[in-house]
Amino acid sequence: MPSLERAGFTGGVLPSGCPTRVLLDHVTSKWGVLLLIALSEESLRWGELRRVVEGISEKMLAQTLRVLEGDGFVLREAEPTIPPRVDYSLTDRGRELADHLRPLLEWIAGHADEIIFGAAQQG
Amino acid sequence: MPSLERAGFTGGVLPSGCPTRVLLDHVTSKWGVLLLIALSEESLRWGELRRVVEGISEKMLAQTLRVLEGDGFVLREAEPTIPPRVDYSLTDRGRELADHLRPLLEWIAGHADEIIFGAAQQG
Repeated sequence: MPSLERAGFTGGVLPSGCPTRVLLDHVTSKWGVLLLIALSEESLRWGELRRVVEGISEKMLAQTLRVLEGDGFVLREAEPTIPPRVDYSLTDRGRELADHLRPLLEWIAGHADEIIFGAAQQG
Repeated sequence: MPSLERAGFTGGVLPSGCPTRVLLDHVTSKWGVLLLIALSEESLRWGELRRVVEGISEKMLAQTLRVLEGDGFVLREAEPTIPPRVDYSLTDRGRELADHLRPLLEWIAGHADEIIFGAAQQG
């Protein structure tokens, strides 16, 4: 697995204090994952994101969008209408990341019942 | 993308209160990801895990291993030696999950410098 070794996976799985860890935090935040997947379907407005990503608070939505924008995954476009209309969409980089998240999310969606209910029965 | 739709992705990205969300929490915990990737290389003992997954505390290691064991991703094997020797390894299910995490981690490892340092320059 050469690319992980080049990136310092051996002798420490993504060494602490490296940019890989910072990015991992951004990318594995639960809300980050759900927002990226939601936006991979279509561009959405604030209120639509709140509805689609069930359970996210205003604060977490604002905070997570800011991180994803800062990393260049999400594009925020405000149209000068009254009231202003703001659309959020994925950049090319965001789409590339979402393409890597989707197989993982599909696996989770396909196994969650068995794992969570199975685990509850065993425990 | 049929499998995500079957799993309730439309009209709510993984609806809240569903086992998919619980599993997503387990699987996207930063330490969970790093432990699964570390164990996907080889089975490791407690002290080895602490070293390889740089920065993890005793408490978070214990807690995360417990969750991953409970979900059937990690196998804990204690050998009756003195002192007892405990090995942690991935189950088949854990290996399947790690196979889905690895491309994501490789992408992160390959893009972190550009994204994190690039973002810092812009910001």
